[in-house]
Amino acid sequence: MSPRHAACDVIPHPRAEVASGQQSLRDRYQGVRAATLELCRPLATEDYVIQTMTDVSPTKWHLAHTTWFFETFVLVPALDDYRPFHEQYRYLFNSYYNAVGPQFIRANRGVLSRPTVAEIREYRAHVDMQMDRLFETRPERCAEHHDVIEIGLHHEQQHQELVLTDIKHVFSQNPLLPAYHERALGSGSAAELQWHTRDEGVYRIGASPSGFSYDNERQRHRVFLDAFALASRLVTNAEYLEFVRDGGYSRPALWLSDGWNEVQRSGWTAPLYWFERDGCWSEFTLSGPEALRPELPVTHVSYFEADAYARWRGQRLPTEAEWEVFAADSPIAGNFVESGRFHPQAAGSATDAVGSPQQLYGDVWEWTASAYLPYPGYSPPTGALGEYNGKFMSNQMVLRGGSCATPRDHVRATYRNFFYPTARWQFSGIRLAAGV
Amino acid sequence: MSPRHAACDVIPHPRAEVASGQQSLRDRYQGVRAATLELCRPLATEDYVIQTMTDVSPTKWHLAHTTWFFETFVLVPALDDYRPFHEQYRYLFNSYYNAVGPQFIRANRGVLSRPTVAEIREYRAHVDMQMDRLFETRPERCAEHHDVIEIGLHHEQQHQELVLTDIKHVFSQNPLLPAYHERALGSGSAAELQWHTRDEGVYRIGASPSGFSYDNERQRHRVFLDAFALASRLVTNAEYLEFVRDGGYSRPALWLSDGWNEVQRSGWTAPLYWFERDGCWSEFTLSGPEALRPELPVTHVSYFEADAYARWRGQRLPTEAEWEVFAADSPIAGNFVESGRFHPQAAGSATDAVGSPQQLYGDVWEWTASAYLPYPGYSPPTGALGEYNGKFMSNQMVLRGGSCATPRDHVRATYRNFFYPTARWQFSGIRLAAGV
Amino acid sequence: MSPRHAACDVIPHPRAEVASGQQSLRDRYQGVRAATLELCRPLATEDYVIQTMTDVSPTKWHLAHTTWFFETFVLVPALDDYRPFHEQYRYLFNSYYNAVGPQFIRANRGVLSRPTVAEIREYRAHVDMQMDRLFETRPERCAEHHDVIEIGLHHEQQHQELVLTDIKHVFSQNPLLPAYHERALGSGSAAELQWHTRDEGVYRIGASPSGFSYDNERQRHRVFLDAFALASRLVTNAEYLEFVRDGGYSRPALWLSDGWNEVQRSGWTAPLYWFERDGCWSEFTLSGPEALRPELPVTHVSYFEADAYARWRGQRLPTEAEWEVFAADSPIAGNFVESGRFHPQAAGSATDAVGSPQQLYGDVWEWTASAYLPYPGYSPPTGALGEYNGKFMSNQMVLRGGSCATPRDHVRATYRNFFYPTARWQFSGIRLAAGV
Amino acid sequence: MSPRHAACDVIPHPRAEVASGQQSLRDRYQGVRAATLELCRPLATEDYVIQTMTDVSPTKWHLAHTTWFFETFVLVPALDDYRPFHEQYRYLFNSYYNAVGPQFIRANRGVLSRPTVAEIREYRAHVDMQMDRLFETRPERCAEHHDVIEIGLHHEQQHQELVLTDIKHVFSQNPLLPAYHERALGSGSAAELQWHTRDEGVYRIGASPSGFSYDNERQRHRVFLDAFALASRLVTNAEYLEFVRDGGYSRPALWLSDGWNEVQRSGWTAPLYWFERDGCWSEFTLSGPEALRPELPVTHVSYFEADAYARWRGQRLPTEAEWEVFAADSPIAGNFVESGRFHPQAAGSATDAVGSPQQLYGDVWEWTASAYLPYPGYSPPTGALGEYNGKFMSNQMVLRGGSCATPRDHVRATYRNFFYPTARWQFSGIRLAAGV
Repeated sequence: MSPRHAACDVIPHPRAEVASGQQSLRDRYQGVRAATLELCRPLATEDYVIQTMTDVSPTKWHLAHTTWFFETFVLVPALDDYRPFHEQYRYLFNSYYNAVGPQFIRANRGVLSRPTVAEIREYRAHVDMQMDRLFETRPERCAEHHDVIEIGLHHEQQHQELVLTDIKHVFSQNPLLPAYHERALGSGSAAELQWHTRDEGVYRIGASPSGFSYDNERQRHRVFLDAFALASRLVTNAEYLEFVRDGGYSRPALWLSDGWNEVQRSGWTAPLYWFERDGCWSEFTLSGPEALRPELPVTHVSYFEADAYARWRGQRLPTEAEWEVFAADSPIAGNFVESGRFHPQAAGSATDAVGSPQQLYGDVWEWTASAYLPYPGYSPPTGALGEYNGKFMSNQMVLRGGSCATPRDHVRATYRNFFYPTARWQFSGIRLAAGV
Repeated sequence: MSPRHAACDVIPHPRAEVASGQQSLRDRYQGVRAATLELCRPLATEDYVIQTMTDVSPTKWHLAHTTWFFETFVLVPALDDYRPFHEQYRYLFNSYYNAVGPQFIRANRGVLSRPTVAEIREYRAHVDMQMDRLFETRPERCAEHHDVIEIGLHHEQQHQELVLTDIKHVFSQNPLLPAYHERALGSGSAAELQWHTRDEGVYRIGASPSGFSYDNERQRHRVFLDAFALASRLVTNAEYLEFVRDGGYSRPALWLSDGWNEVQRSGWTAPLYWFERDGCWSEFTLSGPEALRPELPVTHVSYFEADAYARWRGQRLPTEAEWEVFAADSPIAGNFVESGRFHPQAAGSATDAVGSPQQLYGDVWEWTASAYLPYPGYSPPTGALGEYNGKFMSNQMVLRGGSCATPRDHVRATYRNFFYPTARWQFSGIRLAAGV
Repeated sequence: MSPRHAACDVIPHPRAEVASGQQSLRDRYQGVRAATLELCRPLATEDYVIQTMTDVSPTKWHLAHTTWFFETFVLVPALDDYRPFHEQYRYLFNSYYNAVGPQFIRANRGVLSRPTVAEIREYRAHVDMQMDRLFETRPERCAEHHDVIEIGLHHEQQHQELVLTDIKHVFSQNPLLPAYHERALGSGSAAELQWHTRDEGVYRIGASPSGFSYDNERQRHRVFLDAFALASRLVTNAEYLEFVRDGGYSRPALWLSDGWNEVQRSGWTAPLYWFERDGCWSEFTLSGPEALRPELPVTHVSYFEADAYARWRGQRLPTEAEWEVFAADSPIAGNFVESGRFHPQAAGSATDAVGSPQQLYGDVWEWTASAYLPYPGYSPPTGALGEYNGKFMSNQMVLRGGSCATPRDHVRATYRNFFYPTARWQFSGIRLAAGV
Repeated sequence: MSPRHAACDVIPHPRAEVASGQQSLRDRYQGVRAATLELCRPLATEDYVIQTMTDVSPTKWHLAHTTWFFETFVLVPALDDYRPFHEQYRYLFNSYYNAVGPQFIRANRGVLSRPTVAEIREYRAHVDMQMDRLFETRPERCAEHHDVIEIGLHHEQQHQELVLTDIKHVFSQNPLLPAYHERALGSGSAAELQWHTRDEGVYRIGASPSGFSYDNERQRHRVFLDAFALASRLVTNAEYLEFVRDGGYSRPALWLSDGWNEVQRSGWTAPLYWFERDGCWSEFTLSGPEALRPELPVTHVSYFEADAYARWRGQRLPTEAEWEVFAADSPIAGNFVESGRFHPQAAGSATDAVGSPQQLYGDVWEWTASAYLPYPGYSPPTGALGEYNGKFMSNQMVLRGGSCATPRDHVRATYRNFFYPTARWQFSGIRLAAGV
């Protein structure tokens, strides 16, 4: 590391230390960018091109879009002499930033054979080189744009997760059922379900000003909670299978009305990647099709399924505030993308669960009963990055805790993920809650 | 009133007095049922048949469905010898109660010429006669089913509102633009906008066990609110027109993402019934097309429009808790269906607004920033009536306060109405809120 | 009849005698117009309003549109002082004449409660009175517009057929399955199937200049035909049922590709109005549901079904030229609308079939293997009436011979009806042909 | 060439000599197969994967499907020991042969990243090797299956054309507008339009039994034609531009009704690949975007546009019989795929047009006024190959003469191509006809 580069990070910045820990921003940039490419290593060129539904983007689009983010929001404003790599990329790789300009139609991302994967790798290399020039030669500009670079890295980590969940969907739609990697799912048995309680009272949730957080986690505020209980671990495949076998998917009384409509419209009879042959259930994983393991957490369920399951059990989903109250007291540890499993694993023995719920972080995103709405006093940043989170605050539900496809340093207790209640292609699962 | 009839109501029931005031339940039944027919008086036979979109039902369907409700949930269980009027009505006029059985497809209600209006009026007369027999001869059964009858009356009042809003939509789609009635819109000017504030603290909202309420208003519970301010009156046409003229419908930065998609998909450029010719704006009303009155409250806007308008003003919509805190202190008075106006009217002079906001009740339903979700400890009733409210608790937003099409004794401070954020055919409008 | 009225028809016109036989045009006008109303007699007001699919128009729309035709194409040009009955009817009741102006969206005809049935009857009375004034006072104008009046009467007869087939569809979509009239279907057995042949050679088909014909029947021209055979009668329900029971609807090899797609898309398993309960087949008729009569001609089949049936039998459908060669030699007699049956009847005993096929006219329209295309030298009339037939000459198939809903004096050997190959709501059936 | 191989072709077969000229079937097989790969040479791996609309297939699908054809219809029946290359290819690469089994959904061909291009090339190599084994070692089997091999080669030639037209569509949907190859369009001017006439009479059309033909060209039969005239050359861009500039796309009177609906639904304002900037027209070609050349034949027009253009000129399209009468007298020469232009070229000077129309073959497929229907006495082959042509005989129009993407030895005077009247992505153009 050169002295000039180091210069960048000695510029004092209140958030820098917290956000990047011991690592310099430059190191962190290089690490995150390399990790994205690493996830693509098992793919054939053809795999990078496919879009199986509007929610899914081709892998090469992810590679380009995350690069476009740094080009557009960092290099262009920070380097006076910076010339965009290609004039049409501004349009092609803009996801949804109206303030930047028009966007290529999302549903059509899979019709673009060009730029090729090789060209997009060149684009990445070009931007990385320029970012490096910025880190090395312009510490003051680097400091000015520190927060946006930080957002860009978190943004890229979100897309790392999508690279995995999107390619899983792509492979699942192919009758050949290709595997992304060869890996055993692991074994074990799930700990017994227990309940952890909290008393009624006024609690504080949301991100404090120090440390990195997205705008939607702020501001920290008070909420009143009635006394409640949270399950000690995630719902397992075995437990969910009981629901399936009890006719869960054919009893409208268990479902929200919109959920029941979706069950009928889409013909849902089980979680997204489950399939049944001769009475035996399997699930499609990133290692290909596998016999359903009873002890593993159920995943790839929609909010509507999570809600119906909870109702069938006579319980409910936690609110995001209830979840956060427990998570704030728990260390950020679990089965993250770094494990290389790319699949949730069984809750360990009860011993490590003394005092606090297991699996709060990693494994699967946990659907909450909370609609994704602004916190009191919320205001988005000005400019294009104001479109990052705020404009999606309708019709979506909050999920918490990260998944087996999430980088460990990407999540925190206050992190709010959000998806439509019909979405199933993420590693999304269920933790129960109840009144006391 | 016969002594036998009176007998029904002397059975002591804790809620009866509160719910029906001085009126006996039998009187109230007759009053509500007659009011429905009274609203149909201006209609031609052909008008009863039309369905212009899935949300809209033909008038004769409303007449039959509300009757079906009493037949299914009161007469069949309460009168052992009761025989349904027509065996297929159970299917034809079931709206969405899966527990009762399958339902005729909602979107196809407008393809049914039979039963004719005359036949449906016979159906009503038959059920009314049987209900009267119940009131008169079976006081004990009447008492047992008191709560369901009460719900049936509130249910019918909801459909009275729909009779008006649905026929308004029907007429609006006809190039002849027929008028439902001939009536001047009234005149006046809107009071100046002021702000009413409340301090931060723990408040109680939701319905107490005494008095009639729907399940979704219960249970009464505590919420923590930051200090906030509520506008003294509704947003006017003049104020909303400023938003329109400022390019409100062509600036994505003002909209939630789903709202902006809807603007583009549906080509929205103004509230539902506004239209512009040569720079002059008019709106279609139940009295036919009228020049837009600047002082009247804007109505027939979606949640997305309400939200965009508030953002453009630099403010926001109130949460339902904020709204209820004020409404709980205000008398239930305003421009309701009984006024016969069937259109919102201008906020009066400021004098009557001393100390509390105007127009909290009546005029237009007020969109809140709250998603329609269960209150803490919510549990729906068992049986088919459990489907009345609870199963709609996703993807919808709460509206408060009733409208010019709502019967006065139908609303209360805790009343939670709910519609999808794209819905515009109700008398829905905007009240602003802000932090302090 | 007044002398002045008579005057109108003494104006010599080459076609008048042929077209209207002994009847004056005025008499014929009155007869046709009265017949339309007569067909509406069994209907309730609500029945006039319904549109169950885009192809179907509400009865009151037919009443108004046929009136609009005379107003627009006769009264306005012929009477200098004529003022249209209502300024918006030009728009509301224009079916598809772009030369007249824009049209109210066809698929939305069922959302119009107004004008009411009573108002449309007034409109008819007004136009009839004005037509009568024309007949009586302006013989020269009457003569000038003779051909258009004649077209208007044939046009109205086409809509008489639609009044019946459309209301049949409306009633069929109602779970109450209302009957249009009470009438037994008749009895009997179908004559044995025989074959009539013709030698190869050059034949002439198409309408000669004398007598009324539509533009699409002209000009008369030569075609070369290989030797062929035509079945002596229509395919019966019994015969078609064999096809159904032989798995006809589940064997793609029997179907044209587009037909097979439609079978799957629409879930066809039998003709439109057939339904099966416990192995017994019934069909919905204008007299309500009836047990399927084996001897009656199959009806309400699409071209794709007719074609698949013929393929299954190892035969084919006739071309329109083949059909016309036989029909030109047959008297125009059969089961027409005047019978009041409104349903096809069985082919009589073989005795009346000596020398020529039975049921060529009436009973059901017979699908031919001919696409609806212009005859050699075809040119449509100038002006709006050029849109009557010519612009539909793509994607449709020709049907011949009229049906049980067709007025007897409406059809002729050269008459070309046309529908999309998926259409089933007309009285359409099957006659087989074969090479020899 | 080995003696054994030669043995295959000495088996006397009446059609062999005509179909393949001097070339042995084995040579022809190798030539056709190599030509397909040659057309793919300019493509990047990513280009092989894309499907931009249901009509378009990914290039790699074409490579696999044509191989599947030989595997399924030749190798499996002809070689007892043949084992399919991959068990799921039977399903994945079956286009529409219900007799072979179910097919992967056509509209989803673009979601398959696997098998990769390399794997499909292996598949081709495997099948080619096995075919070579068949040619070399099993002359008698080879002879038995001669006709199917011949069909397989013609089939592959059809897909060669689709490789070009599909990739053109793929590139056209990409804002980067990639070029397939770099090549000047050529220059010149179009010959003056003249008319060639024929007298009325009975003509023979259709394929005679000798020589290769598809089933749909048979049997040869007589038709009566009125006297007619055929234009000496194709309609040019300059001529078509007059139609565009005369408001052709906004005048419903010029269009068939279904065509006008399509104009409005799809927003057509010019041929498929034309675009206009600042009043200048360009067209997208396989060499990328180019300024519109006035002298070149107009291409990528639908039947509806061809028909509307002809109507606007006061003329009409020829019937397929009229076209064939002239084509039967013309040598099969023109601008075919072998020219490497992949774009139509201008009609040469009038000198080469003495006595017969120019451009009958090659350049663009010529829309005829004839619906695609069976010829008299038509019967498809038994078995799966009966699905090749016959089942498409509804809703499509006949095109004649081949295009600049057609191999020269693939077309003939009797060749009947067919597409839906809305199709525009083929090299389809216009020749005028008229009565005399």
